[in-house]
Amino acid sequence: MKKRYPVLLAAALLAQAAAPAQTAPTEPKPLLGFTTATAATEYQHESAFDAQLKADNLRQWMKRLAAHPHHVGSPYDKANAEFMAGLFKSWGYDTRIDVSYVLFPTPKLRVLELVAPTPFTASLAEKPVAEDATSGQTSEQLPTYNCFSKDGDVTAELVFVNYGIPKDYEELERRGIDVKGKIVIAKYGGSWRGIKPKVAAEKGAIGCLIYSDPKDDGYAQGDVYPKGPFKPETGAQRGSVLDMPTYPGDPLTPGYGSTKNAKRLDYRQAPTLTQIPVLPISYGDALPLLSALAGPMAPEPWRGALPISYHLGPGPAKVHLQLAFNWNTEPVYNVIATLKGRQLPDEWILRGNHHDGWVNGASDPLSGMVAELEEARAIGELVKTGWRPKRTIIFCAWDGEEPGLLGSTEWAETNAKDLQKHVVAYLNTDNSDRGFVRVAGSHTLEKFFNEVGRDVLDPETHISILERRRAFDLVNGTAEVQKDARERPDLRIAALGAGSDYSPYIQHLGIPSMNVGFGGEGEGGEYHSIYDSFDDFVRFKDPTFAYGVALAQTMGRCALRLADADVLPFEFQNLSNTVGKYGTEVKKLTDDMRTETERQTKLLAEKRYEAASNPDHPLLPPKAQDAVPRLDFAPLDQALLKLEQSAQAYAQARKANATPLAASRQKALDQLLYQAEQQLLSAEGLPRRPWYRHQLYAPGFYTGYGVKTMPGIREAIEERKWPEATEQIKRTAAALERLAGQVNRAAAVAGPAAL
Amino acid sequence: MKKRYPVLLAAALLAQAAAPAQTAPTEPKPLLGFTTATAATEYQHESAFDAQLKADNLRQWMKRLAAHPHHVGSPYDKANAEFMAGLFKSWGYDTRIDVSYVLFPTPKLRVLELVAPTPFTASLAEKPVAEDATSGQTSEQLPTYNCFSKDGDVTAELVFVNYGIPKDYEELERRGIDVKGKIVIAKYGGSWRGIKPKVAAEKGAIGCLIYSDPKDDGYAQGDVYPKGPFKPETGAQRGSVLDMPTYPGDPLTPGYGSTKNAKRLDYRQAPTLTQIPVLPISYGDALPLLSALAGPMAPEPWRGALPISYHLGPGPAKVHLQLAFNWNTEPVYNVIATLKGRQLPDEWILRGNHHDGWVNGASDPLSGMVAELEEARAIGELVKTGWRPKRTIIFCAWDGEEPGLLGSTEWAETNAKDLQKHVVAYLNTDNSDRGFVRVAGSHTLEKFFNEVGRDVLDPETHISILERRRAFDLVNGTAEVQKDARERPDLRIAALGAGSDYSPYIQHLGIPSMNVGFGGEGEGGEYHSIYDSFDDFVRFKDPTFAYGVALAQTMGRCALRLADADVLPFEFQNLSNTVGKYGTEVKKLTDDMRTETERQTKLLAEKRYEAASNPDHPLLPPKAQDAVPRLDFAPLDQALLKLEQSAQAYAQARKANATPLAASRQKALDQLLYQAEQQLLSAEGLPRRPWYRHQLYAPGFYTGYGVKTMPGIREAIEERKWPEATEQIKRTAAALERLAGQVNRAAAVAGPAAL
Repeated sequence: MKKRYPVLLAAALLAQAAAPAQTAPTEPKPLLGFTTATAATEYQHESAFDAQLKADNLRQWMKRLAAHPHHVGSPYDKANAEFMAGLFKSWGYDTRIDVSYVLFPTPKLRVLELVAPTPFTASLAEKPVAEDATSGQTSEQLPTYNCFSKDGDVTAELVFVNYGIPKDYEELERRGIDVKGKIVIAKYGGSWRGIKPKVAAEKGAIGCLIYSDPKDDGYAQGDVYPKGPFKPETGAQRGSVLDMPTYPGDPLTPGYGSTKNAKRLDYRQAPTLTQIPVLPISYGDALPLLSALAGPMAPEPWRGALPISYHLGPGPAKVHLQLAFNWNTEPVYNVIATLKGRQLPDEWILRGNHHDGWVNGASDPLSGMVAELEEARAIGELVKTGWRPKRTIIFCAWDGEEPGLLGSTEWAETNAKDLQKHVVAYLNTDNSDRGFVRVAGSHTLEKFFNEVGRDVLDPETHISILERRRAFDLVNGTAEVQKDARERPDLRIAALGAGSDYSPYIQHLGIPSMNVGFGGEGEGGEYHSIYDSFDDFVRFKDPTFAYGVALAQTMGRCALRLADADVLPFEFQNLSNTVGKYGTEVKKLTDDMRTETERQTKLLAEKRYEAASNPDHPLLPPKAQDAVPRLDFAPLDQALLKLEQSAQAYAQARKANATPLAASRQKALDQLLYQAEQQLLSAEGLPRRPWYRHQLYAPGFYTGYGVKTMPGIREAIEERKWPEATEQIKRTAAALERLAGQVNRAAAVAGPAAL
Repeated sequence: MKKRYPVLLAAALLAQAAAPAQTAPTEPKPLLGFTTATAATEYQHESAFDAQLKADNLRQWMKRLAAHPHHVGSPYDKANAEFMAGLFKSWGYDTRIDVSYVLFPTPKLRVLELVAPTPFTASLAEKPVAEDATSGQTSEQLPTYNCFSKDGDVTAELVFVNYGIPKDYEELERRGIDVKGKIVIAKYGGSWRGIKPKVAAEKGAIGCLIYSDPKDDGYAQGDVYPKGPFKPETGAQRGSVLDMPTYPGDPLTPGYGSTKNAKRLDYRQAPTLTQIPVLPISYGDALPLLSALAGPMAPEPWRGALPISYHLGPGPAKVHLQLAFNWNTEPVYNVIATLKGRQLPDEWILRGNHHDGWVNGASDPLSGMVAELEEARAIGELVKTGWRPKRTIIFCAWDGEEPGLLGSTEWAETNAKDLQKHVVAYLNTDNSDRGFVRVAGSHTLEKFFNEVGRDVLDPETHISILERRRAFDLVNGTAEVQKDARERPDLRIAALGAGSDYSPYIQHLGIPSMNVGFGGEGEGGEYHSIYDSFDDFVRFKDPTFAYGVALAQTMGRCALRLADADVLPFEFQNLSNTVGKYGTEVKKLTDDMRTETERQTKLLAEKRYEAASNPDHPLLPPKAQDAVPRLDFAPLDQALLKLEQSAQAYAQARKANATPLAASRQKALDQLLYQAEQQLLSAEGLPRRPWYRHQLYAPGFYTGYGVKTMPGIREAIEERKWPEATEQIKRTAAALERLAGQVNRAAAVAGPAAL
């Protein structure tokens, strides 16, 4: 099912890939969804759009928006929303601020002490830096904390749990260490932070600390701020610990909008709050705690870059953690700016980025927000020349993303029906710096995005951003990535997990979505700290805002092409190729687990673990596991075949009929296309988290940010729930069959057979 | 050629491997080289031998021998030799002390200063520890230094070069860093230490520092001495930097014995001394130097566990290094204790371990030396009961191993002719601690060793040391090692590189050799420091000396079986299997290099490296390489086939004729067998290092300790010397054909056809 490029074609593609890096196009290249004539016009609009973009606007807006802390509930958060609304209005957009009312806890009390073997009180404070103009705005800054931690007052021995993900606890168990009744300390990384207290609580821990090890974003990575961009000794990462893999958005209004008078859960019953208190700390505060641990050495990969022997505990380090929060409800201000389409006003292109930050939030989120503003301004300028998009373009600036996608989720839930009916695609950005384009999203838009990437030049190398990314993949990629980059005409885009505002659109509503940014050259340790400032950004991230402009060129093109295409540029063969790959992966996962289980079972029976253990550092055998059965993947294979056939049928239909369709047929086709993604939703949603309805993409229940593709199947296998895996194979197959049906209908409408 | 176990046999072996861990044999198992009757007698002797072994003897001797520093030239070195000679004599051995006279430089002046940007003077002194009785013997200790560094007085900017091996310099070049005229600082590890100044000098550096990063054997591995066994802040690793991959032994007498009046080179012309001054330092002394470096960040895998950002330089750190040595000639005292064989006195079993240490040398070398002493004592006790070995057993206690295998090499060179004529096998040990048996050696002895390992019990688990090692391989091994451990009846022993006294015997004289030790549970950072003491050993290495006794059981069995076998227990099918593997490896190496060269050439042509480079941290493209030709491996394949056939013929001949041979035939067969290994020597030796004559095993020219199998072929390929590779394929094939001829002759003498 997977092999899509026969040998001869592959050779041709190779030759194509090997062509010298291209410069700006001299004659219009074909554009998906356009005729030669309409493509030429489109290119003219895009040139005019590009000509409008000014790096200095991005710089000035970032400076203005990052001038003060602008978290949810802060005066500057509201001021920023109003400032941006004013800009959109001034550029001709029909603009409003939509307000939701969400739970937003802030710290009332934070105490962290080492009470044994020697007393130490953690400072829990980031040190202002003279070279950073806003780092000293102490009275306006939110202290370091994890949002949606519960209140608590606990004292217990400490245990070091690496990243605090399930397999780390397996390692602890093999060393005879139980965290029941203990406080755990986990490193940032390895999963989304909210997973750490969730798993710790499942294992019986009563408190959780999360610290930033200097190995990950401190001195081990490079010079620390302000000498370099990496995390200084007192830097700590704020952040949400909401159980977003269950559902994002206001924890008190699961699945519906948190309008002023909506029915709300009592916050003490909200299922997405943590079960235990949790606090993020700096490596300066973590050092005395970790130094005071004894017990077995941590496994080698767990050890960080502090100048200590990393022991696991428990104890003798004993810790007192006390946290209390203000459980306030706060307004979040979503700015919604609409430019109505001329021909198809009921088809909406949504373009969004959040505007709230944890502190001054220059990189996260303003780097993407200012690009979006400039896109809106430039399109406003195009409108002044008499052009108007065929479809409606809506610019959104979300509030409350940081605590848990609050603004975007509540807006999506409030307007769910309209959005599913009208939205063609949701285009998201968030923090973005410099280097290589990173794209994730619906694979129905993969080919479309490749055309966009082909037509935007990289500011540093002056080759297309697509070819620069291909070079990166060819030079640095895994064998699989290199093979893709060499043999596949299109860059394979990644799948969307969680981590920004696209989540409700794609995973809850089935709206085709994309998330785009540049990265790889703007590394640093400022994330969610007081050091994510304008000063930091212009020194280390994107000093000339050239990549901000490139991002605007990229996202502006996406919006313009989607808005003006004759036929919406969806394509299903790339999707079918990638989904086929997911199918292969889940089968291989099962086979690999079976082989490993057989190996372990044999080693257990032979008592090899006991024989291989070092009596001074004993390692218990792993737990015995039941054999992995042979799962029936036939329904999935059949559905994948149907999808492949339907994708081919649609491609042929489009090819055979390049002339513009009649308006009514075009509208019908558009709707079939952009609602195709909704066929992938299941009514029941994923097991134990019905909010997530997409059968192809979801954040991992135990990884958080990281996407699990075919999540129903994959997680059932990973968690060894075999009957559920079989059930999910059928459910995912059914979703793919629904999609194939929709694509066949689209082929029928598009193709000459239907004429 | 490689596949040796057809499916049915593999299944049978699997069943065997899966059998429950065995206990001590209840009835005699067959023994290679013995009949059922003679095996029974042999087992009786071995039981009597085992019964003699007393852990307390090992403890007392180690305490006595490690009581003072006992390096070459020290009074206690000589005293130890005389003490041991006295012991051997008292046990009935014909004992003498053979003396060679070797160059042995010791420090006269050691200065290391940071002169810019801020001054710092390195202490270059290890701190005594109250808990360690001998660590304060400062006046007797050799200071920390690298033996055979040249004198020098240099001042230059510093560059961090990771492990200082050739591929590290490729990385530096890609970052635009040239070490010409600089002083380099390298971490210990990644190669034998002598490679670091050798490569640095080749690259134009004028001085070299080697430091122990805490990541490798300091606090990152565990608590430091005396709390735990790892390297404390002031600990430094002494050690030789002689260019041993060119030739070991006295640098002034290459290839011949350094007897009193031997002709000697001027030390200033000796080719195996370093070209630049080199000094080992502690991480305490390295920290200010490394902290003062700027320039690009070191690649991630290069970074250690110091709490700094590891920059590469060059500078602004500027270093002054001044070294001067006493270029003295010193006597080295080899103790040689002989027990003459009753029937075949002209066939010698050599058993050796060195006795000199860098300081108190408890683990290195006394842990192995005291086991050897106890073997000799126990065999002496057997002799008192009326038994006497069939063949001659010679116990050797070498001096001057640490500076460069001086004692053993000079003795081997002095007695080369006799040794090649008489020695059946050389059995070596060196430092040994606790855990899992580690064996390397001639693969003609692999099956023999497996029988020995089958019959010795592991002190911790009470299964055989072989099964314990198999458990380790099954649980922790790479996929390839796991497969071997699961499917192969015999543990695959490793090949010998350099690193201890076996080197002259196997690699220069072609004498079958083995090196054995226990390890994996006695980790620490005491190596070549003042902390390698009796106190350290009994706390962290082998507190009860149970593994010392296990080592004596193992090596005693090796000596006894070789001495008393009816027919020497050499076997060639395991050898053929392993050599076939080497053949496959060198072919794969060539193929992999070809693929990678093609990939790089394409990426270079397409300018992908430039496109993937980060302008802030530029990475130059790698150097273009010529395409890798197709080498003609046919001579090797043919020789491997002949070897396989001859091995099979010998096995069949032995099987068909289990009855004892007539004495003259037995003697002829023995000689054919133990001189078989000499067929693998080439008269010319390896390219650019004629002292190394073995075509299958040599230390890597650019790795040092690490073995290169089929070194002529492998290194020619690695260094892209294609005509030389072709030449070496022929030369190695010729050696294998000579061996096959010898094995066929042995088969003819052994087999019934010859009756």
